[in-house]
Amino acid sequence: MKWCRFQSGKTAACGIIKGETVVEVDGSPFESYTETRKIFPLEAVKLLVPVIPPTFYAAGLNYREHATVIAKKRGEEPTFPTQADVGYRANNALIAHNEPIVIPKDASELVQYEGELVAVIGKRCRRVSEDRALDYVFGYTIGNDVSERTWQRNDRTLWRAKNTDTFKPMGPWIVTGLYPDDLHVTIRLNEGIVGEYDVGSAIFGVRQLISRMSQYLTLHPGDILWMGTDGNTENMEDGDVVEVEISEIGVLRNPVIRER
Amino acid sequence: MKWCRFQSGKTAACGIIKGETVVEVDGSPFESYTETRKIFPLEAVKLLVPVIPPTFYAAGLNYREHATVIAKKRGEEPTFPTQADVGYRANNALIAHNEPIVIPKDASELVQYEGELVAVIGKRCRRVSEDRALDYVFGYTIGNDVSERTWQRNDRTLWRAKNTDTFKPMGPWIVTGLYPDDLHVTIRLNEGIVGEYDVGSAIFGVRQLISRMSQYLTLHPGDILWMGTDGNTENMEDGDVVEVEISEIGVLRNPVIRER
Repeated sequence: MKWCRFQSGKTAACGIIKGETVVEVDGSPFESYTETRKIFPLEAVKLLVPVIPPTFYAAGLNYREHATVIAKKRGEEPTFPTQADVGYRANNALIAHNEPIVIPKDASELVQYEGELVAVIGKRCRRVSEDRALDYVFGYTIGNDVSERTWQRNDRTLWRAKNTDTFKPMGPWIVTGLYPDDLHVTIRLNEGIVGEYDVGSAIFGVRQLISRMSQYLTLHPGDILWMGTDGNTENMEDGDVVEVEISEIGVLRNPVIRER
Repeated sequence: MKWCRFQSGKTAACGIIKGETVVEVDGSPFESYTETRKIFPLEAVKLLVPVIPPTFYAAGLNYREHATVIAKKRGEEPTFPTQADVGYRANNALIAHNEPIVIPKDASELVQYEGELVAVIGKRCRRVSEDRALDYVFGYTIGNDVSERTWQRNDRTLWRAKNTDTFKPMGPWIVTGLYPDDLHVTIRLNEGIVGEYDVGSAIFGVRQLISRMSQYLTLHPGDILWMGTDGNTENMEDGDVVEVEISEIGVLRNPVIRER
């Protein structure tokens, strides 16, 4: 199933995408819902961020090649995380498919994409084993963990580097019934492929992260877990278009604007 | 005005505290609301976390004595933040006044309180000056930024150290119309005073933080900003009771339990 959130009149509604149409739903996918008779052409609706999470988790550094590239740029030896210590991102920064990434005036030129898989939690979950962890995932969507590298390196936290408004594109929808390790990520800048990798090559997979997190904390329906990216990342400039494609999910596409 | 959230039958409701009673309200303090005719004795209601924030900000290291004490324990020279780089905490960890802080089995004995002021945002806010920043605060409440120091020191992020379930007591209510720099914090462990300080001695005040944050991000109604603590902090053990009192707000009280 393919779930979306979209603008329906003045309010947001959840919808199920069937072929080229969206069926509006009363309720939410995480609780009870009923399909309404309101059906819209998919191309005519404004898609919103597919879920507003109670808590926004991010694995951060979770792929070996990405960790190596980052370290090399800093003239350091790469170090890989030895345990699944999850980090956070912030809801203010979320934008939907097709909405512009806005680079602030005072950002350096080092504003870069990080295309990644996003797991959406479906059920309250506490102290689950790795074997059962995927039972608590509702579905998967796509995230672009846009990052300003000079702030990332020099600020005490990642607040500006990662959470400036518009720096967290997510969408276009959530797809259920997928097996995360089978998925493949392709990142395009202005239609040219700039990166691709297999989700399954993560240092810690969805199963490991959810199981470990849940030993200490309760995951709630709608919580999201961004899985980290692999490979090199490049600068994005005013006028660029960045796309993150994940097999079996779709394409998250966002134009880039620099404030003047 | 004193605002709370409380359990009303099976659901949560907002209320206004008047003397020793709670007046149930339809709506929320951040939008429109009307007082209902349902009035309860304050001592008879179960208070809930006074707001569930869209984004949960925390200033982290923001007082000189606390930074000095922490550095000394590590055998390091203290370093003070030179700019207001805000961090994050997570909603899963929030508990209300009177609810127990539960220390996991595998935590060290270094589980410590950090009593602090919490500013609650009332209006959407982007690029405000320091002079105008307090206009966007709805009111103030109290937080206890419970921290496991070995995890804080050794994990790659603060996820377990700061955000284990129950590690973020907040409440008991939100008080409007206060001037933050006038407030005084007193922390008691089992009724003995273990710390006190003036909010106004922060390295970065509420005004500075909100203004700076808002240069890059949009603050939303209900977002919360925890201001950091000052002074030494001590271990809490099974059976302890920790209280954070802030003048003109009240007392946030939580018992402590260690899992067996």
